[in-house]
Amino acid sequence: MRHTIRDIATALGAEAAGDLDLTVTGAAEPAMAGSDHLALAMSPAYAEGLARGGARAALLWPGADWQGLGLKAAIFAPRGRLAMAGLSRLMDAGPAIAAGIHTSAVVDATARIGEGAAIGPFVVIGAGVVIGARARIASHVSIAEGAMIGDDALICQGARIGARVVIGARFICQPGAVVGADGLSFVTPEKSGVEEIRETLGTRDAIRAQSWTRIHSLGSVVIGDDVELGANACIDRGTIRDTVVGDGCKIDNLVHIAHNVEVGRDCLFAALVGIAGSTRIGDRVVMGGQVGVGDNLFVGDDVIAGGGTKILTSVPAGRAVLGYPAAKMETSIEMHKALRRLPRLAQRVAELEKVISKLQQND
Amino acid sequence: MRHTIRDIATALGAEAAGDLDLTVTGAAEPAMAGSDHLALAMSPAYAEGLARGGARAALLWPGADWQGLGLKAAIFAPRGRLAMAGLSRLMDAGPAIAAGIHTSAVVDATARIGEGAAIGPFVVIGAGVVIGARARIASHVSIAEGAMIGDDALICQGARIGARVVIGARFICQPGAVVGADGLSFVTPEKSGVEEIRETLGTRDAIRAQSWTRIHSLGSVVIGDDVELGANACIDRGTIRDTVVGDGCKIDNLVHIAHNVEVGRDCLFAALVGIAGSTRIGDRVVMGGQVGVGDNLFVGDDVIAGGGTKILTSVPAGRAVLGYPAAKMETSIEMHKALRRLPRLAQRVAELEKVISKLQQND
Amino acid sequence: MRHTIRDIATALGAEAAGDLDLTVTGAAEPAMAGSDHLALAMSPAYAEGLARGGARAALLWPGADWQGLGLKAAIFAPRGRLAMAGLSRLMDAGPAIAAGIHTSAVVDATARIGEGAAIGPFVVIGAGVVIGARARIASHVSIAEGAMIGDDALICQGARIGARVVIGARFICQPGAVVGADGLSFVTPEKSGVEEIRETLGTRDAIRAQSWTRIHSLGSVVIGDDVELGANACIDRGTIRDTVVGDGCKIDNLVHIAHNVEVGRDCLFAALVGIAGSTRIGDRVVMGGQVGVGDNLFVGDDVIAGGGTKILTSVPAGRAVLGYPAAKMETSIEMHKALRRLPRLAQRVAELEKVISKLQQND
Repeated sequence: MRHTIRDIATALGAEAAGDLDLTVTGAAEPAMAGSDHLALAMSPAYAEGLARGGARAALLWPGADWQGLGLKAAIFAPRGRLAMAGLSRLMDAGPAIAAGIHTSAVVDATARIGEGAAIGPFVVIGAGVVIGARARIASHVSIAEGAMIGDDALICQGARIGARVVIGARFICQPGAVVGADGLSFVTPEKSGVEEIRETLGTRDAIRAQSWTRIHSLGSVVIGDDVELGANACIDRGTIRDTVVGDGCKIDNLVHIAHNVEVGRDCLFAALVGIAGSTRIGDRVVMGGQVGVGDNLFVGDDVIAGGGTKILTSVPAGRAVLGYPAAKMETSIEMHKALRRLPRLAQRVAELEKVISKLQQND
Repeated sequence: MRHTIRDIATALGAEAAGDLDLTVTGAAEPAMAGSDHLALAMSPAYAEGLARGGARAALLWPGADWQGLGLKAAIFAPRGRLAMAGLSRLMDAGPAIAAGIHTSAVVDATARIGEGAAIGPFVVIGAGVVIGARARIASHVSIAEGAMIGDDALICQGARIGARVVIGARFICQPGAVVGADGLSFVTPEKSGVEEIRETLGTRDAIRAQSWTRIHSLGSVVIGDDVELGANACIDRGTIRDTVVGDGCKIDNLVHIAHNVEVGRDCLFAALVGIAGSTRIGDRVVMGGQVGVGDNLFVGDDVIAGGGTKILTSVPAGRAVLGYPAAKMETSIEMHKALRRLPRLAQRVAELEKVISKLQQND
Repeated sequence: MRHTIRDIATALGAEAAGDLDLTVTGAAEPAMAGSDHLALAMSPAYAEGLARGGARAALLWPGADWQGLGLKAAIFAPRGRLAMAGLSRLMDAGPAIAAGIHTSAVVDATARIGEGAAIGPFVVIGAGVVIGARARIASHVSIAEGAMIGDDALICQGARIGARVVIGARFICQPGAVVGADGLSFVTPEKSGVEEIRETLGTRDAIRAQSWTRIHSLGSVVIGDDVELGANACIDRGTIRDTVVGDGCKIDNLVHIAHNVEVGRDCLFAALVGIAGSTRIGDRVVMGGQVGVGDNLFVGDDVIAGGGTKILTSVPAGRAVLGYPAAKMETSIEMHKALRRLPRLAQRVAELEKVISKLQQND
């Protein structure tokens, strides 16, 4: 599909210059761009790449000398990544899911499918399910009994939506994600070792041989509007109340959100994050890859946790944290610097001891 | 479905008081409970919530003044979470999987399906598979040639059971879990860098450019009775012998158990735990979220590893460990406290050096 | 299937002795081997196991006294694990996927399926897909529009190959892996807290309430020859350019490779590794389990990262690293030793302070 520079600029709400009727079929990095590409050169660092590539038009930093760069047309992006968002939305064809319900799909007679929805091959939709208008559901997806999916959802191949899960509008679910598996919730007949060391921070009485009794998950999962869920990510159902994920949250691949967790709005969790049971997360919390949060904690609004951070105690709002266990980011960096100097510090202390021992003898 | 207070108390083996013929349709947290709910208020901390909610009956802590709390009936739970287990089992309708074999399922003629089994849409069952009585197998599951599944299994949507895997009774498998993928086992023609630094702890001779040759997995996976496996969790097949998971183990979402690993009985692994190849884990071992265990190690019975712990050497039985690398929990906490004070300690040493330098001059 | 000792030795290019016409049906660990097994005893440590088992033939360390060990035939393996590779390849029957295209598969009319390919039940293949010769595609796999898969691929149950993904020859893909999900790429209208603390390492101006705007993934994924991908692993598509994984890479279960990442050749990533967006990884890089790499970094050729390492800054070629944050392996081990002694060091400093205080008084 061809787009004129004018149409792209209009879609981005951005200024443009040169031959606005010039058309492009896609976007490319400057050095790899051909004559049909819009080169993405949103900072002067890309000027050199432009010279090597073959683009006739580019998305440029404000004030760039587009003619000097040898271009026939240019669009100016004051905030480059934001322009990328608009541009990529315009150019994304989206997945090919044929209109209507594929003949192989197994859709329960009591399910209600919204107008304009597209449902792919081998999809299974259970009793009482409600699917919003214009939802696109790719092959091999299962949506279990009583689940409700909002308008304009995109649910990719093999995703699993469990019974009675409720999801808002514009949900995007990558392949293999699982919403509404049972929580891992077990209890021993008598106090378990884990309960004990939580109180003692490490020491235990006589160890008992006990087996685990299952606590079933009677709750479900409630997900707000505009949520995105990554490939093979998992959100478990609650024990009694529902697990909750607020509006606008963006959750990456292989993230685990346990039973009873409540996540506020506009959070962003990178891949392999794990949040343990019954923990509450505020609004706009950002977690880097492989961050872990213990159970029954509270993480305040606007907390940012660097990659690999393990949060073992609650974190107040607005704090940036890092490390294992998590500490304020500045503190964590300072501790690590001191640790790097620690072997040398130990030597210095040993030298002091020698000097003082001599001083004492002299004394 | 309605349950009388009498029936619930009997199922839990618990004492009850008040109008035992009162019925409820479900359970709820005290503040969110309606008149048809059994409020779950197993400690005095929930009394205030009861007052705000509308429950007429509750599961209470022993000795609670149920009439003073405004209730018409009460059940008393000496160990709250244990009562929750019984109650949730009673109230869990379980997934809707229609009786019999769905017409779309592809079941090999040589497979033996147990009496009363329910097999959902788009299930594939290979040659020689044996499925136990009353097994429930949800949509999109695949069970490859020669696998054996015990009685009363519940295998959820899209789970993958590999060839010749053997699983005991009452297996619960959440969606997307994979049992019996090939192990990651490779070898280089000559000694690899990894083999070298394992011996030298870091230094290497000349680096060779080598490619990896695959070691195929000829073993399978053997899983005991009463095991639960979380969503998108993975247990790989062994190289020659089988990977083994003992009776009663509970394994959370996104856990990885590598080839040749042997896990004892009644272990509990939280989400995103990874256990590397050929490691042996004892009985009743508990691992928090994101714990990692290196390859070819031994973790003794009753070990408890806190969230995020990385176990790089074997751990004796009964020990509680924490940290990266894992240390005894008390030691780890003490080390971390000392680390927090380290920047200040370094200042104190610098001051000592100054003082002593002066003392030496005076001397 | 029976193999003679002669055939096995020939396949391994190894020397053999004794009755070369003796046949075996499989391999086993020495102590568990029966008379139809080839016992695997590639080091003298296994001699004792041989005595307990019932094998008549064994794969032995060079120079072993096979007759003294009571064997009728023996094969000698100078590099045991390499022999295992050859042996296991010989004995692996591979998954049962019937020849041809299963009648239930939904294959787009414009897809081109290579000669001798086997396609299982409930597979979905999109428009314009190209599948190489002799490819084996197990049940429930989806291959979206425009994807290209090389010759001799083995794609296991429920794997997801996204639109326009290009994969080389001899690809092995374990169940549930996802290639070509959208990247997690979002931007806020104004500078986000994350952008801010990357500059300040922790401190922030006034916090703004902002939502995330999606950057769509227009790129795809390009995978070289001889790559293996583990169960439920994920490789995301690029934003503009393609995410790239080089020839010969072996990637374990539950690994995450983010958008725009470029991985060189012959890398090996153990389970639960996460590599964040736009990071470049050199050739022959080895990462232990649960290693994490931050975004926009560079990891040089032949780097080895021990289990659990979190790489937060770029790593030069040839380095072995460990820890969080990653440091040279020797440095990391030295730091940890010093940390273990830190509580004692703090006591020693306190004692010095007392002594010096006394010396000063005396002075």
